[in-house]
Amino acid sequence: MPDIIVQKYGGTSVGDTEKIKNVARRIKKYHDSGQRVVVVVSAMGHTTDELVELANKVNPKPSRREMDMLLSTGEQVSISLLAMALEALEIPAHSFTGAQIKLLTDGKFSNAKIEMIDRTNIDSALSKGKVVIVAGFQGIDRDGNITTLGRGGSDTSAVAIAAVLGAKECEIFTDVDGVYTADPNKVKSAKKHKMITYEEMLELASLGAGVLHGRSVELAKKYDVVLHVRSSFHENTGTLVVSEDKVLEKVIVSGVTVKSDQARVTILDVPDKPGIAAELFSILAGSDVFVDVIVQSSPYKGRNTISFTTPRENVADAKTILEKFAGVHNITSVEVDEKISILSVVGVGMKSHVGIAADMFKALAQNQINIEMISTSEIKISCVIKDEHAQAALHAVHSAFNL
Amino acid sequence: MPDIIVQKYGGTSVGDTEKIKNVARRIKKYHDSGQRVVVVVSAMGHTTDELVELANKVNPKPSRREMDMLLSTGEQVSISLLAMALEALEIPAHSFTGAQIKLLTDGKFSNAKIEMIDRTNIDSALSKGKVVIVAGFQGIDRDGNITTLGRGGSDTSAVAIAAVLGAKECEIFTDVDGVYTADPNKVKSAKKHKMITYEEMLELASLGAGVLHGRSVELAKKYDVVLHVRSSFHENTGTLVVSEDKVLEKVIVSGVTVKSDQARVTILDVPDKPGIAAELFSILAGSDVFVDVIVQSSPYKGRNTISFTTPRENVADAKTILEKFAGVHNITSVEVDEKISILSVVGVGMKSHVGIAADMFKALAQNQINIEMISTSEIKISCVIKDEHAQAALHAVHSAFNL
Repeated sequence: MPDIIVQKYGGTSVGDTEKIKNVARRIKKYHDSGQRVVVVVSAMGHTTDELVELANKVNPKPSRREMDMLLSTGEQVSISLLAMALEALEIPAHSFTGAQIKLLTDGKFSNAKIEMIDRTNIDSALSKGKVVIVAGFQGIDRDGNITTLGRGGSDTSAVAIAAVLGAKECEIFTDVDGVYTADPNKVKSAKKHKMITYEEMLELASLGAGVLHGRSVELAKKYDVVLHVRSSFHENTGTLVVSEDKVLEKVIVSGVTVKSDQARVTILDVPDKPGIAAELFSILAGSDVFVDVIVQSSPYKGRNTISFTTPRENVADAKTILEKFAGVHNITSVEVDEKISILSVVGVGMKSHVGIAADMFKALAQNQINIEMISTSEIKISCVIKDEHAQAALHAVHSAFNL
Repeated sequence: MPDIIVQKYGGTSVGDTEKIKNVARRIKKYHDSGQRVVVVVSAMGHTTDELVELANKVNPKPSRREMDMLLSTGEQVSISLLAMALEALEIPAHSFTGAQIKLLTDGKFSNAKIEMIDRTNIDSALSKGKVVIVAGFQGIDRDGNITTLGRGGSDTSAVAIAAVLGAKECEIFTDVDGVYTADPNKVKSAKKHKMITYEEMLELASLGAGVLHGRSVELAKKYDVVLHVRSSFHENTGTLVVSEDKVLEKVIVSGVTVKSDQARVTILDVPDKPGIAAELFSILAGSDVFVDVIVQSSPYKGRNTISFTTPRENVADAKTILEKFAGVHNITSVEVDEKISILSVVGVGMKSHVGIAADMFKALAQNQINIEMISTSEIKISCVIKDEHAQAALHAVHSAFNL
C-alpha cells in the first residue's frame, strides 16, 4: 500500500478561489506521485470572523452550541470547494465533514477535545484512489451535536487524523515557511530551523510563536507524528517537528520569543500558611483569568511575595478578584504593572548545558535592561522586563546566542 | 400535550439579520401561547446563488455530491442564527441539520427524495420546551452523504416533518400573502383565496404560480397536512391548501395563470405506428428537455402531427435531438415557434360544470387572440397562444370568470 500523507492548509492558504486552485495543483503532485493524500482544511480567510460578526448582530451572547453549528459551516465550504477544484484537475476527491468521519469529541462546545476518529470512510475513499478532504476544527459529540475544537483546532484535527491513519508525516501548510529562532518580522537575522523537538515547539507555541497551537504539538508528540511546518506559497522545505531522539545535533538555544501586552501583579504580604496560593490561583482559574509565569520568593517575617503575569486584557478581572481575596486575608499591598513583556529562551540543549541563564542575564545587563522577574523550566528561561525594552532585549539575546 | 405547529420561512423571510430577528419575534408569540413550534428555514436571501457562483469559479461543472455539501451550509447558517435570535429573546431553541434529524433521502444528489425522518431528536428537544429549528432543503443518504432536495426543497422538508409529527398545520411563510386567482403583479383585480384544494394548488404550482413547489403539495395531499400559505411580513391570514372534502363551496375556476418564455415544437409528418411517440419523448426526457403540454391530432394519410411545448431554454437541446430523430424516421417537417405562452384556467369545480372551456375560448376570441394548441385535464384547461397576447389574454380570461 502506498504511504499516506496528511496535509493541513490554513485559512490564508485557502483564502480565495484562486488560492484554493493553487492548493489543488499542489495536491495533484502528491497524488500523481502515487501517495495516498488526506487533506485537512480550515475555513477560507476571514470567514470565521464574518460568521462571528453575523452572530453578534442577532445575539451578543450566543450559546456555544449554536455558535459551533454556525462556525462549522466555514470549513464545510472550504472542503467542498477544494474537492471541486481537484475534480476540475481530473483528480477524484471526496470531502468529509467532522461528523462524516465520526470525529467524536467531548461535549464542550467551542473548545471540544477529540476522543475518537473512525477511519472507515477515509479508508474506503482512499481505496478508490480518491484524495480525501476533511473539514478541520469540527467534530460531533455523543449526541450528534456539532462541536468545534477551539483555537488551532484544524492543526489538532490534522494531527489526530495522521495519528489514526498511521501517516508517515503531517504537513502543516501555513503563511510562514517554518519555525525560526525568533519572529522574522521582528528580528531580521532570525534563522529557520530544519528540525526542532516537540518540547521546544510546545514552549515556543505557548510563548506566542504563533505557528502551531500547543494542543496539536502535544498530540503529535503523544503519537510520534512528524510535523512538517512549511509555506503553502512555495516548494521549499520547512521545519520538521520531531521527537528528541531524532534530533542528532541538539542546539543549545533554539529560539527566543517575546510576549508583549502582559501585566504583572504582585502581592507583597501574603500570609505564609499552606493553601493560600492554591486558593488564589483556583479563584483566578475559575474566572478565566489566564495566569502565565508565577514566582514566589522565600518568606520574610511570615509574609510571602507572590507575583504572576497575566495578559493585559485580564487585568480588570484579576483586580476585582484580588480585592476580594485581599479583604479576606488582610492583605494590604497589591501592585499591578500593566506594561511588561516576557522574554524567553527555549532549547532542549539547555538541560545539559550550564550557564545559559547567566549568558541571557548578561546580554540584558549589557543593554541596561532590568529584569523584573525570572522563571525557569528544564528547557526554558523566562524574564519579565518592561514593555519598552522588549524589542532591544529580543535582539540582544538573539545575537548573544549566535542564532 | 400541546399542539405541534410546523412553520417554514423562505429565503426572503430570513434575508438579513434584522429579518431573522423579526422571524424570532413571530415565533416567540406562538411559543408564548403554549404551542410546540417546529421551524424549517431556507438559506438567507441570495446565499445559495453566491455559493453556486463560488463553486463555478473553481469548477464550471462541479460534481453534484460536492455541490450539495457546499449548498447545505446555507441553511445551516440560517438555523444557527435563528436559534441565537430566539435565545436573545430568552426562548430556548435548538437547531438541527438534516443529518441530525436523520432526514434520510435516496442518493440522487441535487434532487433527492425523502425516504424517512426520525422524530426522536425533535421530540426530545420539544419535550424540554424548546423551539426546534430544522435546516430545510437538505438530508443525508444511506451512506451519510449530504444531499439536497432540489427546487422548493425547504417546502418539502417542512411538509414531510409536519406529516411525521402529525402536526395540525404547516404554515408556509413567504413574501406573498397567499394564493391568488391570478398573479397580483400582473392582474390588479386578482383576489386572494381563503381556501384552495391540493389539486388546484398542484396545477397552479406546475403552471408557474411560484408560491409552492409541486412536490411539497403532493406530499401534503398524501399525508393530509393542511398548508397555510401566508406572508412573513404581516399577521394577515393567508390561503389554506386543503383536501377537496374540506372546501365547502367549490369555486368553478380558482385561478388563471400564464407561463411565458415557452416554445412550441411541431412535427408534421410522424409515421402513424405504435411506439414512435414513446421513443421521441423518452429521448427528450433522457436529455433533460422539459416537456409540458403534448398534443397529438388524429392521423391523416398515415401521418400524425405531434406538438409539444418546452421552456425556451431547452429549445437548442430539443432541436438537436429532433434532427437526429427526424433522420431516423424520415421526417421532413419540423417547426419551432419560440415565442409562445401557455394560458391556463384551473378549478376543481370544472369537473361538474360544463362550458368552462367554451367560456375561455370565447373570452379569447372576443379579444382577437388566436389559440394555437389546446390541452385539457380534469381540473385544467390550457391554451397555447402567442407570447405577445399573454397579458391581454390573462386579463380577458380573469374577468370572464368574474375572479
